[in-house]
Amino acid sequence: MKNGLPLAIDVVEAPASKIDAVDFENLVFGNVFTDHMMMCDYEDGEWQTPRIQPYGPIQLEPSAKVFHYGQAIFEGMKAFKDDEDQVWLFRPEANIDRFNRSSVRLAIPEFPKEVFLEGLETLLNLDRDWIKQGFGSSLYIRPFVIATEPGVSASPSKNYKFMIICSPAKAYYSGEVRVVFAEQFSRAANGGVGFAKAAGNYGAQFYPTNLAKQEGFQQIVWTDASTHEYLEEAGTMNIFFRVGDKLLTAPISDRILDGITRKSVIALAEEFKVPVEVRRVTVKEIVEAAEKGELKEMFGAGTAATINPIKGFGYQGKRYELPEQENSYASFFKTKLMEIQYNKAEDKFGWRYLVKEK
Amino acid sequence: MKNGLPLAIDVVEAPASKIDAVDFENLVFGNVFTDHMMMCDYEDGEWQTPRIQPYGPIQLEPSAKVFHYGQAIFEGMKAFKDDEDQVWLFRPEANIDRFNRSSVRLAIPEFPKEVFLEGLETLLNLDRDWIKQGFGSSLYIRPFVIATEPGVSASPSKNYKFMIICSPAKAYYSGEVRVVFAEQFSRAANGGVGFAKAAGNYGAQFYPTNLAKQEGFQQIVWTDASTHEYLEEAGTMNIFFRVGDKLLTAPISDRILDGITRKSVIALAEEFKVPVEVRRVTVKEIVEAAEKGELKEMFGAGTAATINPIKGFGYQGKRYELPEQENSYASFFKTKLMEIQYNKAEDKFGWRYLVKEK
Repeated sequence: MKNGLPLAIDVVEAPASKIDAVDFENLVFGNVFTDHMMMCDYEDGEWQTPRIQPYGPIQLEPSAKVFHYGQAIFEGMKAFKDDEDQVWLFRPEANIDRFNRSSVRLAIPEFPKEVFLEGLETLLNLDRDWIKQGFGSSLYIRPFVIATEPGVSASPSKNYKFMIICSPAKAYYSGEVRVVFAEQFSRAANGGVGFAKAAGNYGAQFYPTNLAKQEGFQQIVWTDASTHEYLEEAGTMNIFFRVGDKLLTAPISDRILDGITRKSVIALAEEFKVPVEVRRVTVKEIVEAAEKGELKEMFGAGTAATINPIKGFGYQGKRYELPEQENSYASFFKTKLMEIQYNKAEDKFGWRYLVKEK
Repeated sequence: MKNGLPLAIDVVEAPASKIDAVDFENLVFGNVFTDHMMMCDYEDGEWQTPRIQPYGPIQLEPSAKVFHYGQAIFEGMKAFKDDEDQVWLFRPEANIDRFNRSSVRLAIPEFPKEVFLEGLETLLNLDRDWIKQGFGSSLYIRPFVIATEPGVSASPSKNYKFMIICSPAKAYYSGEVRVVFAEQFSRAANGGVGFAKAAGNYGAQFYPTNLAKQEGFQQIVWTDASTHEYLEEAGTMNIFFRVGDKLLTAPISDRILDGITRKSVIALAEEFKVPVEVRRVTVKEIVEAAEKGELKEMFGAGTAATINPIKGFGYQGKRYELPEQENSYASFFKTKLMEIQYNKAEDKFGWRYLVKEK
């Protein structure tokens, strides 16, 4: 992006929309993409003119560094439509800031915030019809950047491709979720990339998660790699525990993602006087609380599911079921968050971001 | 690959060779690729018919899982040409076994060993002219597999692409190498993917390595993430220390790559009665040995460089230079390895593998 030049985005519209072929009642998460995508290449030491073009495949050299060295990061965001057909984002600047923090850790050049937001708004306006009204319906937004320089020497790429692709989503329901506390495998090291949305953090979880699934658990709650004594996060979501009426969650660190849903839950808990403690949470205290009947709830917090209630957990071969809750924190926070996201409640924190029609 | 069918590889030869355009005297590592590449797709739960075709770009959906979740692994191998124009591989089955161990950890289906080797030999025969005679000249071979299924749900891909690409290499000389011992950043967690050649392990090292380079160090010797007290590996090579006349190197673990050059050095050390200890090596003992003048050498061992002598190291802001060695272990082992690789010495261990002309 040449300094001093006004912000310009090249737009090539799709000749026809694919939207009529999509069954919006039966969407599988992340499988269908909208008519357009945003793309911007980093070459000669700077981001070039961003473009929006019809969604379609990309061509890369087989030696492109993303294939060999995992130099790639991403974000997850959502757009929501209110009853007046206005489109809203939720805390988009927090995602863009984290996108750039992830980039720095992966030696990827940061992407200019204003171009990100301007491009995203242009894209959302083009694909506005793909965002459906109604609690639970949303457009899942996937910004990412990949290292495209050809060549297999293990060094940072000189070229990158920034992209945003979008996928319509229904209310995320993944069935009943039970988790297992990690005793052997780990997600992240101290001084590693666990806090970043680095591509490699996710592929590394698939094998242990497959093993967990064979035991009847849908996800793993990762523990610290050094001792496995502290509960950290679940890889695609941060984790909250309700012990008595107190809400507990681990502090962010270089191993734990600074989840935007997580920090929104903490802010809402403070607003609604739910006692919340952000501190290291031990496996021992949660197991003991479960045994005493004091562990009332566990839930995950993340962009895809917003709040994902957890029905039980496993640890050292034992299984613990959580009781049904009449007034669960999980559903309370989910409702409060969605009311803000869908413009149905006051937005005290200034989290909603209106996508202006152009 | 249908069971029971005889092994068949579809071969499409390049209409013309690019070889005349290549300056073999001034090769940059991993920048130029030969005329052909091997490719095999995993679809419908099995590896399909492998093919060899002209080297060229590949097309993927922007939602392909490799871009988002780093589900990708690779290997590094070399082919050597002897004075009779015979082409040799070095311990190829060890690479293929490790390729499949990496695949398992990344939830990628294993690739059949015999197809890997048969395809590689066919490819090497087609691109035989790209392998030049002479100590130091070789063909660097990069097998890799990437997750190609479109869709951004964080789960293992159903489709994969296996590829082998090849790049002619000269004697690897990267200038004088000094390393810094990691005090803050880490490469791998206990129970993580450090032992695998997972793509994400490499991109994660670029940022800390850039910081090290600003301080005048070319590489980082990673320490254990829990305490930073033990020296582990250097990310693209395993590390050996010579204290007095004793050779020390860390044992392999779930954080440390089972390097083929590493284990070949250990075997040669035993053969030639060089005292070698495979045990955890502390930062403290190496710093103390350096201060007492007992640290005679450090070197890295890996496929790209074979043996890479290290001139000095940094730790806690102090710099330590290593003395010049008349009869260095590094050059001894490098010569011994190359004599075997180039068919110039007896191959007691059965490490050489002849690529039969077809």
